[in-house]
Amino acid sequence: MNVNDSVTKQKFDNLYCCRESILDGLKRTTDVMFGGKQVVVCGYGEVGKGCCAALKALGAIVYVTEIDPICALQACMDGFRVVKLSEVIRQVDVVITCTGNKNVVTREHLDRMKNSCIVCNMGHSNTEIDVTSLRTPELTWERVRSQVDHVIWPDGKRVVLLAEGRLLNLSCSTVPTFVLSITATTQALALIELYNAPEGRYKQDVYLLPKKMDEYVASLHLPSFDAHLTELTDDQAKYLGLNKNGPFKPNYYRSVLAGCCWGHRFPLGAL
Amino acid sequence: MNVNDSVTKQKFDNLYCCRESILDGLKRTTDVMFGGKQVVVCGYGEVGKGCCAALKALGAIVYVTEIDPICALQACMDGFRVVKLSEVIRQVDVVITCTGNKNVVTREHLDRMKNSCIVCNMGHSNTEIDVTSLRTPELTWERVRSQVDHVIWPDGKRVVLLAEGRLLNLSCSTVPTFVLSITATTQALALIELYNAPEGRYKQDVYLLPKKMDEYVASLHLPSFDAHLTELTDDQAKYLGLNKNGPFKPNYYRSVLAGCCWGHRFPLGAL
Amino acid sequence: MNVNDSVTKQKFDNLYCCRESILDGLKRTTDVMFGGKQVVVCGYGEVGKGCCAALKALGAIVYVTEIDPICALQACMDGFRVVKLSEVIRQVDVVITCTGNKNVVTREHLDRMKNSCIVCNMGHSNTEIDVTSLRTPELTWERVRSQVDHVIWPDGKRVVLLAEGRLLNLSCSTVPTFVLSITATTQALALIELYNAPEGRYKQDVYLLPKKMDEYVASLHLPSFDAHLTELTDDQAKYLGLNKNGPFKPNYYRSVLAGCCWGHRFPLGAL
Amino acid sequence: MNVNDSVTKQKFDNLYCCRESILDGLKRTTDVMFGGKQVVVCGYGEVGKGCCAALKALGAIVYVTEIDPICALQACMDGFRVVKLSEVIRQVDVVITCTGNKNVVTREHLDRMKNSCIVCNMGHSNTEIDVTSLRTPELTWERVRSQVDHVIWPDGKRVVLLAEGRLLNLSCSTVPTFVLSITATTQALALIELYNAPEGRYKQDVYLLPKKMDEYVASLHLPSFDAHLTELTDDQAKYLGLNKNGPFKPNYYRSVLAGCCWGHRFPLGAL
Repeated sequence: MNVNDSVTKQKFDNLYCCRESILDGLKRTTDVMFGGKQVVVCGYGEVGKGCCAALKALGAIVYVTEIDPICALQACMDGFRVVKLSEVIRQVDVVITCTGNKNVVTREHLDRMKNSCIVCNMGHSNTEIDVTSLRTPELTWERVRSQVDHVIWPDGKRVVLLAEGRLLNLSCSTVPTFVLSITATTQALALIELYNAPEGRYKQDVYLLPKKMDEYVASLHLPSFDAHLTELTDDQAKYLGLNKNGPFKPNYYRSVLAGCCWGHRFPLGAL
Repeated sequence: MNVNDSVTKQKFDNLYCCRESILDGLKRTTDVMFGGKQVVVCGYGEVGKGCCAALKALGAIVYVTEIDPICALQACMDGFRVVKLSEVIRQVDVVITCTGNKNVVTREHLDRMKNSCIVCNMGHSNTEIDVTSLRTPELTWERVRSQVDHVIWPDGKRVVLLAEGRLLNLSCSTVPTFVLSITATTQALALIELYNAPEGRYKQDVYLLPKKMDEYVASLHLPSFDAHLTELTDDQAKYLGLNKNGPFKPNYYRSVLAGCCWGHRFPLGAL
Repeated sequence: MNVNDSVTKQKFDNLYCCRESILDGLKRTTDVMFGGKQVVVCGYGEVGKGCCAALKALGAIVYVTEIDPICALQACMDGFRVVKLSEVIRQVDVVITCTGNKNVVTREHLDRMKNSCIVCNMGHSNTEIDVTSLRTPELTWERVRSQVDHVIWPDGKRVVLLAEGRLLNLSCSTVPTFVLSITATTQALALIELYNAPEGRYKQDVYLLPKKMDEYVASLHLPSFDAHLTELTDDQAKYLGLNKNGPFKPNYYRSVLAGCCWGHRFPLGAL
Repeated sequence: MNVNDSVTKQKFDNLYCCRESILDGLKRTTDVMFGGKQVVVCGYGEVGKGCCAALKALGAIVYVTEIDPICALQACMDGFRVVKLSEVIRQVDVVITCTGNKNVVTREHLDRMKNSCIVCNMGHSNTEIDVTSLRTPELTWERVRSQVDHVIWPDGKRVVLLAEGRLLNLSCSTVPTFVLSITATTQALALIELYNAPEGRYKQDVYLLPKKMDEYVASLHLPSFDAHLTELTDDQAKYLGLNKNGPFKPNYYRSVLAGCCWGHRFPLGAL
């Protein structure tokens, strides 16, 4: 059962969590001030959207790179200039990858960064930044603190590489218990569903969490925000053609927020 | 062919357009100042999200009502208190409906609103506010300008009803040509696809616009923002299992943004 | 008595009012969509800050020009790139002046703007845009609606000039009654103070509204927001060396928000 | 020479710095997720404004308490409900003080907080939270990590007290080098001015940094943001009555941003 694409997982683990962990990860490792900094975010999926929103809110000037015209247009409408990485690489103070792709930041980009540029990865495993290309004799590595390396060019330029290109949010930040609770609940419910399902409901395949369970996970977490749901009247439920207890959205709606890295890669592989 | 659920239509016609037209519609009809106003938005789909974001950005204090726990949890994470309408109806300055439902604002709610409360509908046809219930002898209607009625209670209390409960964004605001262009392009492409499609591709049914066309519509609008797309290298395309020219997301991803009123009603009816 | 520099006047008439009227004025005259638009705001005083905040919140990409390094640094920290007008004039969709200066937008700038660029003034009288320079035979003026002129270059390029360079917020928008109330109350209190003042308190000079009156104006408007002030305990008042009823800030603090258009220097000129 | 009230010090050390350090301080000590949390900020001066803006941007629901009606009205216009602490103390997840006052959070407030409520001080020394009142036999203190104490009520309720009520931003966060640079430059220039000043310019008194020096400090930091100042033409300088090299604002304008903790009144006390 693919719980990765359930709405609660997608939205909370990716967008909302990354919105906070990008700030936390950068602060704990570099103490950088965000106000006025120029930042490029590679990829405008859920993770990229979270990173962009948080950094913009704290006064950074944020550029976005994208391969998908729909995500690119969203970035425009959200107030970010959509550029190719090479257009801004000389001027930015921070480079953040969240594409799910590989070699998004190449040695050529790294060569052109300015002194003290910070480079980190919020996306997928450790492939997005071509770290291997930095393991060459002319560059010196200096570990300045845990998870923080200065890579030093012959002319003295330093690039600040975080977590050796691995995931910043896992390596240098903490995951709020709230998000863990959402994720764990989703996984637990998936297992319960598989265990209880009548024979034949699931074949040898990858399934998405039924919409109703996804909604159930969400409803379990509302009281902690003192949030009060509205209930449909009989008349309204009839008008909408819905059951008063949900599900409230069609099943395909689950993927609402897929789009970041993990969202569009793994399920595709699996299906 | 259901073009209503294509991403470009959903995101632009609903979220981005409503983000602006809620402000425009309220200003043109009432000249209300947004700063410090208490507003309740019924429904946190795409339209609701747009309304909430715009009003919050301009200094309003915004409450949300929802029936769907997933949307409710999103509202929480976006910084809105999720309440039942009856909890805040006495204190709010503006009530906005965008649920796709009917009788969301009832006569009972209207009776309890404070003097000069503004009531309007951004959602679905003219069913969301129970306007019929206001056509009773004890209430006086006074048309103060085009699209603006004061409904006056016996004690002198006035409720400001916009567009008689019809869509504010169509009645009292303008639709940017940019959004019309997106919508018209989507529709035109759908017709071209139907015309050119080899026999048998489409049967007597409702189809969603192929993902690739949706992306094409978006790409046609990028130059007006001077946005520069990144192209996948061969190696990257192979790594991701994608064609370099798209589509970049699975087809079901189209519904990314369904969720507002129109999003979750019409296609369901049709399918 | 100079009421123009009292905090309530400054902050409400300039920052908060302009934050809304820039959007309103542009929408009513041009129906422009803000999302994704590139805008340059000349001057980062209170008016400029209001314009920038509103446009950024609605998804525009905003550049700032400044002559004062302190205001420039504030613009940086608020997430705006500080540029010279000539650097961005070719690419922007909207130009807004709020400097209090003259000839900030020159014919040379106008010549280099792109087709359909919108130009308007939120600052001081009608001097900021050099409109006179556009009254030349090779340019055609076309009035497309009230307060909106297209100035047409020989090659067909059109620049959209609003209110012939006069104040957009007065010409093409409305002023909320709330703000009028603040301003009128301030003026009325100033007159009452002058009338009641014992002989000798005021000489032939320009005075600022006593801080306490400024606070009184503000306190009169709090109930409309259902805002509840906290009162100092005796012990706290003693600790702070304040009277429990105010004033709560030193008198010079009034100027807190001066800074808008340098136009606001003019009353000082009187001192 | 009072450098504390110079604009650069005020704005950068207080507003911009606190906007980031409140997030950083809370994350490093508690790993709290901000989205959806209810927070009350006591005091809406520069520090309070910074805290409120940052937390709102990350999805918290923020309430403000104020004693000054002008600051209270600003909070309203910025979209925060202004309340008395006792009105919200039962429901909030985080309490932050930045008033410069003493005993703003009393034992009575602490008794009524909900379980796991976080309490911290961003304001003035260690007087704002009445920590002494928590040193009583019926309450148990448990140090859970550096700078974090759980104070445990007989019924098991825990309040999370940070830095024992001392300044969170100094105790639990880092100060960006950029801000230190601003502050140090200001202090150094003040010393240079005092050293070089001709006899008689300064008497035995407390002075504010001349406006021009304040502007100079700012101008020295613009290149790090790649910000480009606009220069006045001769004609414009004459029109404005300004020297082309500044100062660009009257001297009293320095206090623009005073207002944070009333702690900043203290240097004035010296005058």
